[in-house]
Amino acid sequence: MDNRIHKIFNPSSVAVVGASDRQETVGYAVLHNLITMGFEGVCYPINPKRHSVMGIRCYPSVTSIGETVDLAVIATPAKTVPSLIEECGNLGIKSVIIITSGFGEIGEEGLNLQNEIEQLRRKYEMRIIGPNCLGVINPWINFNASFAGKSPQIGKVGFISQSGALCTSILDWAIMHNIGFSNFVSIGSMMDIEFADLIEYFDNDEKTESIILYIESIKKPDEFIKAARKFTSKKPIFAIKSGRFEEGSLAAASHTGALAGSDDVYDAALERAGIVRVTKVEDLINVAQSLSMQGLPKDNRLCIVTNAGGPGVISTDALVERGGVLAKLSDKTMDSLNEALPSFWSHNNPVDVLGDSRAERYEKAVEICMQDENSDGLMVIFTPQAMSEPVATARAIARIAKRYNKPIFTSWMGAEYVTEGVKLLLKNGIPSYPTPEPAIDAFALMHKYLALRNNLAESSKVDISKIQSPSGEIVQKCKSLIKDIKSKNERNFLNEIETKALLEEYGIPTTKTQLAQNPSEAANIAKDIGFPVVLKIQSPHILHKTDAGGVMLNLITEEGVKKAFEQIIENAKNYNEKASIEGVTVQKMVSLSGGFELIIGLKKDPIWGPAIVFGSGGVNVELLKDKSISLLPLNKFFAKQAIEKTRIYELLKGYRGQEGADIDYLESILVNFSQLVTDFPEIEEIDINPLTILGKQAFALDARVIV
Amino acid sequence: MDNRIHKIFNPSSVAVVGASDRQETVGYAVLHNLITMGFEGVCYPINPKRHSVMGIRCYPSVTSIGETVDLAVIATPAKTVPSLIEECGNLGIKSVIIITSGFGEIGEEGLNLQNEIEQLRRKYEMRIIGPNCLGVINPWINFNASFAGKSPQIGKVGFISQSGALCTSILDWAIMHNIGFSNFVSIGSMMDIEFADLIEYFDNDEKTESIILYIESIKKPDEFIKAARKFTSKKPIFAIKSGRFEEGSLAAASHTGALAGSDDVYDAALERAGIVRVTKVEDLINVAQSLSMQGLPKDNRLCIVTNAGGPGVISTDALVERGGVLAKLSDKTMDSLNEALPSFWSHNNPVDVLGDSRAERYEKAVEICMQDENSDGLMVIFTPQAMSEPVATARAIARIAKRYNKPIFTSWMGAEYVTEGVKLLLKNGIPSYPTPEPAIDAFALMHKYLALRNNLAESSKVDISKIQSPSGEIVQKCKSLIKDIKSKNERNFLNEIETKALLEEYGIPTTKTQLAQNPSEAANIAKDIGFPVVLKIQSPHILHKTDAGGVMLNLITEEGVKKAFEQIIENAKNYNEKASIEGVTVQKMVSLSGGFELIIGLKKDPIWGPAIVFGSGGVNVELLKDKSISLLPLNKFFAKQAIEKTRIYELLKGYRGQEGADIDYLESILVNFSQLVTDFPEIEEIDINPLTILGKQAFALDARVIV
Repeated sequence: MDNRIHKIFNPSSVAVVGASDRQETVGYAVLHNLITMGFEGVCYPINPKRHSVMGIRCYPSVTSIGETVDLAVIATPAKTVPSLIEECGNLGIKSVIIITSGFGEIGEEGLNLQNEIEQLRRKYEMRIIGPNCLGVINPWINFNASFAGKSPQIGKVGFISQSGALCTSILDWAIMHNIGFSNFVSIGSMMDIEFADLIEYFDNDEKTESIILYIESIKKPDEFIKAARKFTSKKPIFAIKSGRFEEGSLAAASHTGALAGSDDVYDAALERAGIVRVTKVEDLINVAQSLSMQGLPKDNRLCIVTNAGGPGVISTDALVERGGVLAKLSDKTMDSLNEALPSFWSHNNPVDVLGDSRAERYEKAVEICMQDENSDGLMVIFTPQAMSEPVATARAIARIAKRYNKPIFTSWMGAEYVTEGVKLLLKNGIPSYPTPEPAIDAFALMHKYLALRNNLAESSKVDISKIQSPSGEIVQKCKSLIKDIKSKNERNFLNEIETKALLEEYGIPTTKTQLAQNPSEAANIAKDIGFPVVLKIQSPHILHKTDAGGVMLNLITEEGVKKAFEQIIENAKNYNEKASIEGVTVQKMVSLSGGFELIIGLKKDPIWGPAIVFGSGGVNVELLKDKSISLLPLNKFFAKQAIEKTRIYELLKGYRGQEGADIDYLESILVNFSQLVTDFPEIEEIDINPLTILGKQAFALDARVIV
Repeated sequence: MDNRIHKIFNPSSVAVVGASDRQETVGYAVLHNLITMGFEGVCYPINPKRHSVMGIRCYPSVTSIGETVDLAVIATPAKTVPSLIEECGNLGIKSVIIITSGFGEIGEEGLNLQNEIEQLRRKYEMRIIGPNCLGVINPWINFNASFAGKSPQIGKVGFISQSGALCTSILDWAIMHNIGFSNFVSIGSMMDIEFADLIEYFDNDEKTESIILYIESIKKPDEFIKAARKFTSKKPIFAIKSGRFEEGSLAAASHTGALAGSDDVYDAALERAGIVRVTKVEDLINVAQSLSMQGLPKDNRLCIVTNAGGPGVISTDALVERGGVLAKLSDKTMDSLNEALPSFWSHNNPVDVLGDSRAERYEKAVEICMQDENSDGLMVIFTPQAMSEPVATARAIARIAKRYNKPIFTSWMGAEYVTEGVKLLLKNGIPSYPTPEPAIDAFALMHKYLALRNNLAESSKVDISKIQSPSGEIVQKCKSLIKDIKSKNERNFLNEIETKALLEEYGIPTTKTQLAQNPSEAANIAKDIGFPVVLKIQSPHILHKTDAGGVMLNLITEEGVKKAFEQIIENAKNYNEKASIEGVTVQKMVSLSGGFELIIGLKKDPIWGPAIVFGSGGVNVELLKDKSISLLPLNKFFAKQAIEKTRIYELLKGYRGQEGADIDYLESILVNFSQLVTDFPEIEEIDINPLTILGKQAFALDARVIV
């Protein structure tokens, strides 16, 4: 554990630089929070213009305190910060929160200041949260080094937000809904400490049992994934990532680029990290409430107890839609319910205890259902009816919840009528939502984490089936070829023969292709490899060969090949008269009757780096947008997942007795592809489209490598 | 307008049968609500056991009142109800609410009682709401004939719910969120009055400007669609329909059946009715709040004003995801904002007025944005920050909202800190939500209604291009054939030759098919029509010909045809030795290179009747589940919509310069198909799969008619 980060959340002494008596200042708010909320450490206000602040002796500088403090919180104007950092560094203070804004986010001038600070930070080996943040709160020691007006309850959820505004709102909601936090962090501009650092820190922080993130951007993707995977192998992380639709629609040179937006890659990255992504602020708050109050379910089977049919059906709809399962009540449960409930009860899950149910009947039914081993969680719905008792029922549920170790969720539907009941539930650590769907959401999101965690565990069981990278001369030749192409700047892609040689070297099967310089040569090659054949133009200036009329399919005679050769040359000249033409390639026309067309591609994401795109290929690429995106590297486990996530998998595995594809073989091809793109960081994009496959036969019919 | 329904909501005198002093009874609650909430009509408690109830003179029977009342509300045990209805009928009372439960919903005994009531109702020409309901509320005349504990505000939203429990909850929420209602109805078991009747009534009720429905089932589908279309041509209806995932997975005889679940048909029906369907209770409440407070936007362009970047991005994500558009600010707006705001404002929509914005700056920005003609609605986001003013900002927004006729939505993000501000907004008729997404939802749902309304308007402009139903002998022959098949009970489908004859008669092109009895005959037919040909088994006992090895494709020689004939007969015998074999059909093998495979089918829904399924056909049917479902009849407008809703439409209209399908021709085929299934109610299911089409060429290659 980095002790410098630990001190940020657990200092025994704090210097508040910029402390002030003026209530509208941040310096006032921070000091006020530190000294009024029960923090037992020492606070030193620093302000050269004052003798005291808020009745506490004030020091003109950090140095003048006369002893080292654990943490400095800086809330003075941006231009003063570098010298303060230097001062702290000199004093051996290694932990700093910079609340001040006006750095990188305002342009060059601010960026210069920020760079200056960063140099000093490195020099003195400090760790910094901020700048441009709200501060941090550790409720467990009543430590509130922020200018938020309140502190949340003690709890087990760690919260990290890149938006200060959201911090304040979430704090306000959290207090209203009795959501407890282990640590609460406004992470600001992330000059130094970013998500990865805090996730790693929270991993070693016993009181943090789950983490909630609001992400706008990630600065250290590799560290982020590593830290998150470590955390999520034991405890859940939920995140909202905003800016889902922001990306511009840049013209992409390949199908892969068009198919995989940067937000899709974020999805893949978060999933690889074991993090459950949510899309709404509300989901984040709702799941935080359940996380802070309940344990995780063991699986996805939910039992619903309700006093009205309609909301039971609504909840069932929501559950099924989110991948949950209505628990099948055990015989024992049925018998007990039959005994405990009036004869008109629903005799099924949802367990409708009927509109005239008082607290006592609810209590019996809920307790019976809690004992049923066929369910992993309980949802209790209360609707206000003539004889119902919102408070007494809440009290009954609270009594039962204490005695069983199964997560429970509630919806006391209504407003004023149920307010007291809801308060009582929350006070007793039972999550409660005004409508049924958010309760189901919380249950389903928790279960989604279990599925991701299971993935992580499974993936680590599989050997990274690392293909020995081909070490032979072809790889070396290809590397120098790419270097050569890049330096010459005449074309930015490998031609078909080069591309296929590279793919073959990595065990990705292609159709053998030879270059012909004239019609007779083409005819001879064709005769040699056997008809039918395909002819394609080869020119460093023509990437999209079909558009140029540079592809002729299904040629079955020597005469036809000769004519096609001439036609292709003519078309190419018409398409681009300046194009230098190297010849025409000849290859066997492969047509697997009943075969499947797939796309395998590489896309480079500016943040997450290389990502592999797999999906339905050919004309279906853009019609179906049936794809999965995976970060590197792919072992066979991840390759299998990549395949299973697509719709075409239904056909690949053999649909209704029809022949499918050999999935194991396809996995190998993907693993090989992963190895290729790992070995060749100099490649910018690859499209293999289509790769045709049937059973154990596969061919990359067309491929494009952009360098 | 049905005056009997009008009196249910606007009586001047009411008999409360079953009125009681015992506070736990429904009879007490109803009378209490009637006399304590300001209703100015006369209430007569009826109870033979009391002289007075709640200090009001009580009558032993309705007859003993001595004069006719407008409305009887019945809350006595089920077995007493028939004689009470008889009594009311005799007295000329035509409007009744039966609150009592214990009828159809509890089984046969209750159903008998209900049938008895229904007979009396018809005899006396009464209209009844209920049984098994909460009652009705008309806030405009302080009339609360329900046992709900409260009355909502006066307003313009009509609410009809089939779940009584939901009524109470929604009432509670409505009061907390200042949602006003024109009428509030718990519709119960819908013995008589159902959704259609009330929608029709509300259509003539000037104070109802929108309707919110909670639907569990529809009893009069045709009337429902008719009444709803009339209403939605002017004013919006939003509905939640529960039980989305309830249907069992019945084995379906056709692809169409498997493709179109009954919930999909509900979707189609609600859309045809112009009703916007929502899936969450929360959505219903949220949109109700906006409907009750704001007018509809003109289009989907939203301007967002915020004091924090993060929530602005979140709102943008939500808007784009829901089909909305970020308004492009006009030059004038940009100039005004540049003048009014600090230089660091976002210079774009979302308009970020910055974290230190006080009410005054918000007011300026919001007013400027209100005037921008490039936007159709405004969303104002407030996050609590050091210097922000939740109440003063709310007051400023309220002032502006009054002066402009553009809908405005707000999210005051937080809880306690913003409570007063939110109250002030709601009091001033400005919808406010705790997180940004529900506000965006409300805006997007309103716009979705506009799109549906536009559809309705467009569809009524198009002549129902009614094909003259073929009147010739083939139709008649086909009708008697079907009658014959049904009576014989040997098979339940038309054979291929019969099917194709029927399709051709309705202008749906097929491949000509002839029956051969032996190999030579088949070869001769093949020679006649030209190679390649397809051979298929014809047997009344084999519906799934491929499964039986009864189909041979692409036969190109006489010899091949002869062999295929024998093989098919052999396969068929192996498949089902008892199958009687009528012969083997021979047809031209049509293969439109680059053509599209479609499915056109008929599915009969138990509630909505015949529905037409259109989508991607062939092997893609179950892979893609790319389909649209439409109720009958299809004119060209609806046919066009059915086509445009599928993903394959992207290819059909000609993708990237490739040849597509003649959409106009495809529309005609769908319209013809619609006419066919309208003319032949005796047909249970049809699958045309695939229909292949390219340009103006189309062929139903395979088709199945179940009778």
